[in-house]
Amino acid sequence: MKKNVLIIGAGGVAQVVAHKCAQHADVLGDLHIASRTVSKCDDIIASVRAKGHDCAFTAHGVDATKSAEVAQLIRDTGVQIVINVGTAFVNMHVLDACIETGVAYIDTAIHEEPDKICETPPWYANYEWKRREACAEKGVTAILGAGFDPGVVNAYARFAIDQMDEVKSIDIVDINAGSHGKYFATNFDPEINFREFTGVVYYWEDQQWKETTMFASGHEWDLPVVGPSKAYQSGHDEVHSLATNYPQADVRFWMGFGDHYINVFTVLKNIGLLSEQPVKMADGGEVVPLKVVKACLPDPASLAPEYTGKTCIGDLVKGTKDGEEVELFVYNVADHKDAYEEVGSQGISYTAGVPPVAAAMLVASGEWDAKAMKNVEELDPKPFFTLLDRIGLPTRVLKGGLKGEDMAWTDL
Amino acid sequence: MKKNVLIIGAGGVAQVVAHKCAQHADVLGDLHIASRTVSKCDDIIASVRAKGHDCAFTAHGVDATKSAEVAQLIRDTGVQIVINVGTAFVNMHVLDACIETGVAYIDTAIHEEPDKICETPPWYANYEWKRREACAEKGVTAILGAGFDPGVVNAYARFAIDQMDEVKSIDIVDINAGSHGKYFATNFDPEINFREFTGVVYYWEDQQWKETTMFASGHEWDLPVVGPSKAYQSGHDEVHSLATNYPQADVRFWMGFGDHYINVFTVLKNIGLLSEQPVKMADGGEVVPLKVVKACLPDPASLAPEYTGKTCIGDLVKGTKDGEEVELFVYNVADHKDAYEEVGSQGISYTAGVPPVAAAMLVASGEWDAKAMKNVEELDPKPFFTLLDRIGLPTRVLKGGLKGEDMAWTDL
Repeated sequence: MKKNVLIIGAGGVAQVVAHKCAQHADVLGDLHIASRTVSKCDDIIASVRAKGHDCAFTAHGVDATKSAEVAQLIRDTGVQIVINVGTAFVNMHVLDACIETGVAYIDTAIHEEPDKICETPPWYANYEWKRREACAEKGVTAILGAGFDPGVVNAYARFAIDQMDEVKSIDIVDINAGSHGKYFATNFDPEINFREFTGVVYYWEDQQWKETTMFASGHEWDLPVVGPSKAYQSGHDEVHSLATNYPQADVRFWMGFGDHYINVFTVLKNIGLLSEQPVKMADGGEVVPLKVVKACLPDPASLAPEYTGKTCIGDLVKGTKDGEEVELFVYNVADHKDAYEEVGSQGISYTAGVPPVAAAMLVASGEWDAKAMKNVEELDPKPFFTLLDRIGLPTRVLKGGLKGEDMAWTDL
Repeated sequence: MKKNVLIIGAGGVAQVVAHKCAQHADVLGDLHIASRTVSKCDDIIASVRAKGHDCAFTAHGVDATKSAEVAQLIRDTGVQIVINVGTAFVNMHVLDACIETGVAYIDTAIHEEPDKICETPPWYANYEWKRREACAEKGVTAILGAGFDPGVVNAYARFAIDQMDEVKSIDIVDINAGSHGKYFATNFDPEINFREFTGVVYYWEDQQWKETTMFASGHEWDLPVVGPSKAYQSGHDEVHSLATNYPQADVRFWMGFGDHYINVFTVLKNIGLLSEQPVKMADGGEVVPLKVVKACLPDPASLAPEYTGKTCIGDLVKGTKDGEEVELFVYNVADHKDAYEEVGSQGISYTAGVPPVAAAMLVASGEWDAKAMKNVEELDPKPFFTLLDRIGLPTRVLKGGLKGEDMAWTDL
């Protein structure tokens, strides 16, 4: 049984994590939040207080790229669980601090280095999985990629596969059918958002890594609630762990994009404005174009008040059971406006921020306190779904595939 | 009779000016070229030498935003004619230096201040025309906007109007039907190029200034050689002087754009990447987005070797003669590849760079040595056309309008 939580980061997802932790402070204990800019943490705590939560919640300043600084903060606060929702560039530093101090670590996205994109698959092997032995030796629970995608969709895959004798394919589909009313905006940090799409798209088919490029492979998916939606194969973290854990299955990730998004992305990319490498300006100064694009785009957190519509994210898993072909689509539908009303954030931040809190509650209760490094599909999905049903992200299933019978996962 | 020429600037247009001056050093005397970066001047002189010209040609460093520095250089070199093809931000400083030293001034574009776009019409009244009296008092010849457009097109208007009793409308159409083979590029400094299109589009109709926005008013023009081409009303310098000199005529400027250009422009503009105002980045630093876009786009000079196709720029002038409605289309067709072979530049730089050299030759010969400030339509077009015919930009006429009989201007 672990308690007391340190949240690293103070962006849109951290806001959701903070609110959800505060709603469940009875389980999670004292709360702390730390980021380079303490005032952002103060703002988040103020928004939590405004909802009437009076739990212990303290803001701290920390440079999370410095492992020793994070470790000191863990010792000073006495937390036993760290939820890392800072930029993906800090993951390894925060993980190392957790290993050093022996506390549980939870994150929602893979580690990245600022000057590299789309490294060799499987991505986890380049960074996080190198700490597997260290976690096992010290009995440290580290849950990797416990947001929605990666995270909940890994649990969806595991749940579906558990119903089958053999799995043949896992297609993860992420459709945001919401509207923010701006000419163009990204739903989370543009720098991380675009980095996902500017390099090679890796997927796993025929028991090997294959490559395509962004927007080269598209498919129209007819999903519940949001209806027919065009989605394109994209590189995504969960493909890299699922392909490693289920090498017999094809594993693909599909992200929904409208024509307008693709056009804007294509223009920016072709001109070189999405580059993470600095360019030299006429006055001799250097600047990273992607950081300038980020400065010009709306702050993703600012989209929340006007965001309307729904998201549908799920896994279409195909396999066999008792010699028959079977298909399951395991999914969730979330609503942008509901998310804003509950925690002051848009739906994308909400779906990313609620699951790591559920994971933290399962670590606190001992159900997911694995004392080892785990990707989400390596943990029992049922207590996770039970908790998500209760705290805002209910799991549903279409039995027989996308045209199948709609039911709660508990009715399957 | 004046001689010895100082070229200010070392970009793509300056390269053409330098080559053309060297070809006519017998008329123009000793040549000098000055820019902030002397090595660019050296490169231009080297390219002139490579064509076998052995005239006196000297490179100098100058900060042309400092009038006193330019004046000193004029005195030191003993030049009597300055051709200013530096950035539009330096015009007034160079003009003041010419007035102070009593030498002739020629430029190709209107003065601009870095932090302002599309000021109140007529644009010339905000800057250059404020020096009219000073020029008259000191007997200084200042020829404003003597590139192609503005410049040659002003002379086209004057020539056509001289054939009529009354002018009713002047539509200037600029079509570049060439191809540079890049995803996207501007034909001259992107910073100046985009600034033309991001603000209000002013035009003159019914004896008053009217406003529209870029790409709001389009028309397909069926021009000689390049064929039917879509062009859009754009703000342009020459509208502002022609409307002042011929207030009874409607005056409009039309720039040809393909759908691809418009799409790229629209995306960049809507995101805010064409802004001349600084934005704040996540690290606290400030940067002007337009300068970053410029850094990402190809250097216009680099387009020259691969540029193919032709430009057609001309004036459709409508009026009456002896009580009959008459139309003339006065135009030039230039070829990108021919320009590159002759002077190492693409056609847009060529059409902009040849006319100010013709103007300088007319100042040298005395024909255009007006000892006052003049826009090009205020000068006799015939010696200008005669010279342009000879040095690379022949003038042709369609008598009766766009579907009329094609002839040399001398045959009209």
